[in-house]
Amino acid sequence: MNQEVRLCEVGPRDGLQMAKGMMAGADKLRWIRQLADAGLREIEVGSFVSPRLVPQMADTGDILPEVLKMDGVTVCALACNLKGAIAAYEAGAHVLAFPVSVSDTHSHANVGKGTDAQVAMLESIVDWVRSQARPMRIDAAVATAFGCSMEGEVPVRRVAQVAQAAARAGADEIALADTVGYAHPARVREAVRATQDAVGATLTKLHLHDTMGLGLANVLAGLDEGIRGFDSCLGGLGGCPFAPGASGNIVTEDLVFMLESMGYRTGVDLSRLIAARELLAASLPRESLRSGVAAAGIPRTYSAA
Amino acid sequence: MNQEVRLCEVGPRDGLQMAKGMMAGADKLRWIRQLADAGLREIEVGSFVSPRLVPQMADTGDILPEVLKMDGVTVCALACNLKGAIAAYEAGAHVLAFPVSVSDTHSHANVGKGTDAQVAMLESIVDWVRSQARPMRIDAAVATAFGCSMEGEVPVRRVAQVAQAAARAGADEIALADTVGYAHPARVREAVRATQDAVGATLTKLHLHDTMGLGLANVLAGLDEGIRGFDSCLGGLGGCPFAPGASGNIVTEDLVFMLESMGYRTGVDLSRLIAARELLAASLPRESLRSGVAAAGIPRTYSAA
Repeated sequence: MNQEVRLCEVGPRDGLQMAKGMMAGADKLRWIRQLADAGLREIEVGSFVSPRLVPQMADTGDILPEVLKMDGVTVCALACNLKGAIAAYEAGAHVLAFPVSVSDTHSHANVGKGTDAQVAMLESIVDWVRSQARPMRIDAAVATAFGCSMEGEVPVRRVAQVAQAAARAGADEIALADTVGYAHPARVREAVRATQDAVGATLTKLHLHDTMGLGLANVLAGLDEGIRGFDSCLGGLGGCPFAPGASGNIVTEDLVFMLESMGYRTGVDLSRLIAARELLAASLPRESLRSGVAAAGIPRTYSAA
Repeated sequence: MNQEVRLCEVGPRDGLQMAKGMMAGADKLRWIRQLADAGLREIEVGSFVSPRLVPQMADTGDILPEVLKMDGVTVCALACNLKGAIAAYEAGAHVLAFPVSVSDTHSHANVGKGTDAQVAMLESIVDWVRSQARPMRIDAAVATAFGCSMEGEVPVRRVAQVAQAAARAGADEIALADTVGYAHPARVREAVRATQDAVGATLTKLHLHDTMGLGLANVLAGLDEGIRGFDSCLGGLGGCPFAPGASGNIVTEDLVFMLESMGYRTGVDLSRLIAARELLAASLPRESLRSGVAAAGIPRTYSAA
């Protein structure tokens, strides 16, 4: 069994975009360096979206090239359309995260177009990127994959269909995202299996929220189904601007604690990771950072895998 | 597969004993009635221990007979020695919860005697109870079953041995307790399997804490191994007075949400359960109640099993 787990720290993007307050660019860079130094090898550093809608991400174009100088970091950026994808490419991103929502209603609210149109947009991005000299990995984040606060129940069959459409459009990897935090372990298993049936190993990761307190239980369900990639946020920051009630990504500190305790290798040094909370807390005094292991202290029985 | 899950609400005991502030007896009774009305069929209403050490439990002898009047509630009480067990019996408890710690050091700190002496105490309690007219179920809570803040690693083999000793002493049921919150899913699976090998179906439940944020992931691991009983606290109150760093039982609201969403029947009405937080919050203004589902609201996709 593969015991390596690939974590993508989405704090600088998904965490900060919803934060109460702005993190200064210099702090952001120092913080990202601390995350990289703690061993996080894949970091979503920002997004190329409207600075009017998401002012916290307006400096992504300045941040990204600086993060590229950090050794061994895979630099991800989010964009929702071709213009943003081109900006991400031109800034030098290694990976583009591109949302495709299963819920048509959420898709309209989130990116201004329906699911099918967003898949078509993905196709045009793939075409454009493939016409360029340098490669850029394209990850489709299949949003509202476990339910939608606007549409309610999202059929598993439809999740698999949208994932398949994204894969056919040329996405290199597929993630299933619990955008509004409705996932539970049985649903995770069901959706992962259906998606694996549709796209095989192209499904590489889960993007989970801790809205209902079930985040790490959902990780466990994903692990059981063979998933070896997870998004998370230091301190459990985050949410979704268009999904009422959604609050908080899964907590990187607790995720690392769980995975390493179970014998999965993340490459992350838990003490250094917890130390990276300080700068975050100082820069965003109005945010309350979550994490069991940071609050209680690393237990004496802990040892990395 | 058995889809019924038996929950034991330990808020009135494990939750309140560590609370900042005292809950008045009348409030406690009103609150317990709300818990029962929400569908919780087993409630640990207090403990018969030193009122000097645990003043919050001093009124257990008054509370318990009142709870006995509530229809269909299995009334549990905790005691650590024969004197307390007799008091629980004489008050009319249906179930005695009796801690036996795997860690000798923790056992001394918690009950003033080592593990073997506590098993001998259990035996004398069983003998006494069996000599009485009315039966009382005796549950041994195997404490520090997943690690100890004082001794560190607790060997799984030793957990199974202590569980076996408790079963041989006459305990009707065995619970494994994550007293200090060190459990992780792999460890839960391992300890449950070893204990099932030793005592079979006498192992009926897990008492888990959410110290590291892993509580519900640990529940899932237990469910996968066939466990169908869990302790939990409304609002995630609780901890252990002798285990530094331990804070918070698993949250009943989120547990019910997870179980019912997955198709397990708990008998609990989630809306009524969440409503029971109000009185608790009003009575203990210095406590901060946890729960994802209470904070975010019950998702529109939720339906009880």
